Amino acid sequence: MNQEIPYKIYLDETELPRQWLNLRAFMGEKPAPLLNPATLTPMTEEELSQVFCTELAKQELDDTSPYIDIPEEIRNFYKMYRPAPLVRAYCLEKALGTPAKIYYKFEGNNTSGSHKLNSAIAQAYYAKQQGLKGVTTETGAGQWGTALSMACSYFGLDCKVYMVKVSYEQKPFRREVMRTYGANVTPSPSNTTNVGRKILEEFPGTTGSLGCAISEAVEVAVGTEGYRYVLGSVLNQVLLHQSVIGLEAKTALDKYGVKPDIVIGCAGGGSNLGGLIAPFMAEKLQGKADYHFIAVEPASCPSLTRGKYAYDFCDTGKVCPLAKMYTLGSGFIPSANHAGGLRYHGMTPTLSELYAQGLMEARAVEQTSVFQAAEQFARVEGILPAPESSHAIRVAIDEALKCKETGEEKTILFGLTGTGYFDMVAYEKFHDGKMTDYIPTDEDLAKGFAGLPKL
Amino acid sequence: MNQEIPYKIYLDETELPRQWLNLRAFMGEKPAPLLNPATLTPMTEEELSQVFCTELAKQELDDTSPYIDIPEEIRNFYKMYRPAPLVRAYCLEKALGTPAKIYYKFEGNNTSGSHKLNSAIAQAYYAKQQGLKGVTTETGAGQWGTALSMACSYFGLDCKVYMVKVSYEQKPFRREVMRTYGANVTPSPSNTTNVGRKILEEFPGTTGSLGCAISEAVEVAVGTEGYRYVLGSVLNQVLLHQSVIGLEAKTALDKYGVKPDIVIGCAGGGSNLGGLIAPFMAEKLQGKADYHFIAVEPASCPSLTRGKYAYDFCDTGKVCPLAKMYTLGSGFIPSANHAGGLRYHGMTPTLSELYAQGLMEARAVEQTSVFQAAEQFARVEGILPAPESSHAIRVAIDEALKCKETGEEKTILFGLTGTGYFDMVAYEKFHDGKMTDYIPTDEDLAKGFAGLPKL
Repeated sequence: MNQEIPYKIYLDETELPRQWLNLRAFMGEKPAPLLNPATLTPMTEEELSQVFCTELAKQELDDTSPYIDIPEEIRNFYKMYRPAPLVRAYCLEKALGTPAKIYYKFEGNNTSGSHKLNSAIAQAYYAKQQGLKGVTTETGAGQWGTALSMACSYFGLDCKVYMVKVSYEQKPFRREVMRTYGANVTPSPSNTTNVGRKILEEFPGTTGSLGCAISEAVEVAVGTEGYRYVLGSVLNQVLLHQSVIGLEAKTALDKYGVKPDIVIGCAGGGSNLGGLIAPFMAEKLQGKADYHFIAVEPASCPSLTRGKYAYDFCDTGKVCPLAKMYTLGSGFIPSANHAGGLRYHGMTPTLSELYAQGLMEARAVEQTSVFQAAEQFARVEGILPAPESSHAIRVAIDEALKCKETGEEKTILFGLTGTGYFDMVAYEKFHDGKMTDYIPTDEDLAKGFAGLPKL
Repeated sequence: MNQEIPYKIYLDETELPRQWLNLRAFMGEKPAPLLNPATLTPMTEEELSQVFCTELAKQELDDTSPYIDIPEEIRNFYKMYRPAPLVRAYCLEKALGTPAKIYYKFEGNNTSGSHKLNSAIAQAYYAKQQGLKGVTTETGAGQWGTALSMACSYFGLDCKVYMVKVSYEQKPFRREVMRTYGANVTPSPSNTTNVGRKILEEFPGTTGSLGCAISEAVEVAVGTEGYRYVLGSVLNQVLLHQSVIGLEAKTALDKYGVKPDIVIGCAGGGSNLGGLIAPFMAEKLQGKADYHFIAVEPASCPSLTRGKYAYDFCDTGKVCPLAKMYTLGSGFIPSANHAGGLRYHGMTPTLSELYAQGLMEARAVEQTSVFQAAEQFARVEGILPAPESSHAIRVAIDEALKCKETGEEKTILFGLTGTGYFDMVAYEKFHDGKMTDYIPTDEDLAKGFAGLPKL
């Protein structure tokens, strides 16, 4: 194991995972089930299949199979951009003067520019298998919509994207990428749905929200023959698909006998973090090894660090199942000055339960310090990181600087979920000194909590 | 050699080239020398060293060393994003229904988003070695400026970029990427230089041109203590550095016993094409193997297919050496409706000479057909290509479709120079049916030719 570690550890195609890892199967206390909002009883496969593809509804409910085979067609698509590189951040280590060893798993090496494609292609595949005509979804910043458009284009599926209106208008390039892949993109709220019309009536000037776009996409999926709804985060199925991130990272590190002490990921809905930590957390749950996990969230949308662990609505229109999660309340909307994604009001039930069990730390960081870390990283490591990913960079740098003080040679692994090419407006604000931070007051949060359902 | 060929052939770090290949050394008839515009005698190393770093001036003049060592520091930087993948376009082949085997060398896997970084890091390294404070350059669409900013940031050099004014205003995001890497970006023409002030006086509303930005950057480099000028294409030194593209591609193909029949690259100044074909053309020049090379240029800026092979000015201000090349005249400016790069009025002397010797074909293509190819490629191969790169895709698809007719199983290799994230305005025009083609008339070209120097 004395081999010198290269800048990038590439795996070859034969080392691409053949199975996803289902983290829930390794948990003693399982995440709480999704509830039917009408009956308050756990959602059945049949009920879920009204909204989701049948195979995905099965995956959503399966908390006992430790591994699930990745279909050959999905693996073939993965081969176009995976295995993704695991990079040793030699240049960052040198710039920081730290004895820490820093690695990052880079998921931005595909046109969608983020890890979202890992689940998009899986969901599109099952939709195709089921003989569907198309799928509907929502997108905020646009990473998920882009990924799904690519995946649908590959399988010849129609793709209807409801894009939060403010992003639709401020990020026209994201919209054009989706159109390049053939997607149909509608600004939300729109007058194409009942829920959209209702919201427009109530709040005529609204610029939209993720929760509202979800409601519209679900309404269209349920009401259109041959369509289902797909989602890019929060769900168990998404964490399952994203486990390829962690599986590849672990295989690459194992090759060189490296064991991370700290594993860090940004967390919005939890798809990236849940995927990255999957095989490491499985070992921890089995008592085979210990790791220190850190979820990093924006101080402006602090679901883990300041939210309540409770059943809540997943969308604004309250048409989706209820999920038990750390939440700020479905009415919570982060300040408009928050630049990146990671804006969802809740955290995926799996990570919520792990956090509740004390198996994971959570940390909230402010955005100017996030962009400082992003710029420092870009200048030495070359990659221009997405604001979301830069939350993890911030904490990785903080931990590496602690090692510099203590002299500890800790090994740090973090997830670099994507690139920031479509986020230059935020970088410009940062360069011009116009970026500010916002931390919600307890009163702000109380308003969100007031909307939690009384079960 | 019966191994199945993977989607991506990755080389490992030890397979990264240790030497650049100097194509001129393999040529019987060498490219014509650069001439001093005042004396009309070949530029000496001393004269070139007033403008360029000394080591780069040496490389510019060296047409006898077949290989030149790549310094360790440059190789270390290359390791952050190289070896670049060679991709077998299985999905494109299937979509076309062609028996042809298509490969592309993908150079967009770094933040600069293009192959330009290969030479930027080399030029920045030699500037640092010489103890310079900084470098100046021009940029049009912004790929080169971005690459140079990254390279200068890595070596702690100051970087002054003169960006064609119309791009500065229309591509603010490119500008912000350069600022993220610490570069100083000035719209050109500017009032910071004599040549800029003169042009502004003469043409008050001008939106600038590449030739004008070159003149400004050269003026600042020559007039500022501790600065030199660097250029992203056209020069011999740039083709030398870009030979890593072809060397890696050939190593990867050789591993699987694959020999391309056709090698295709887009050509503006010629940096990518010159780099891609280097080792293959060297074999052809030595009579070791035969390949069919195709240079693809925009019909709106057709230097090879409709230009004259003559000595011409490299810049608008006529402060640079004269080069013998296929040229449309230094006063030629492509129609504003041309969306991508590949706008330079001349072609690198090396490729010009090879073309004159009949060793290479050239083909001009119109932009709507280029964007059709780009979109078709994106939808099946996933990568969103730059408009420049898509010129090569167009001809690769055309050649593959010919094979479909004839049943020939030709092997096609093309260079995918970069990604199109910053070109969505052009994609939008294409989607909205607002993109048009423009082919200069013979009268248009005659005006450019009228400005050729009488030697």
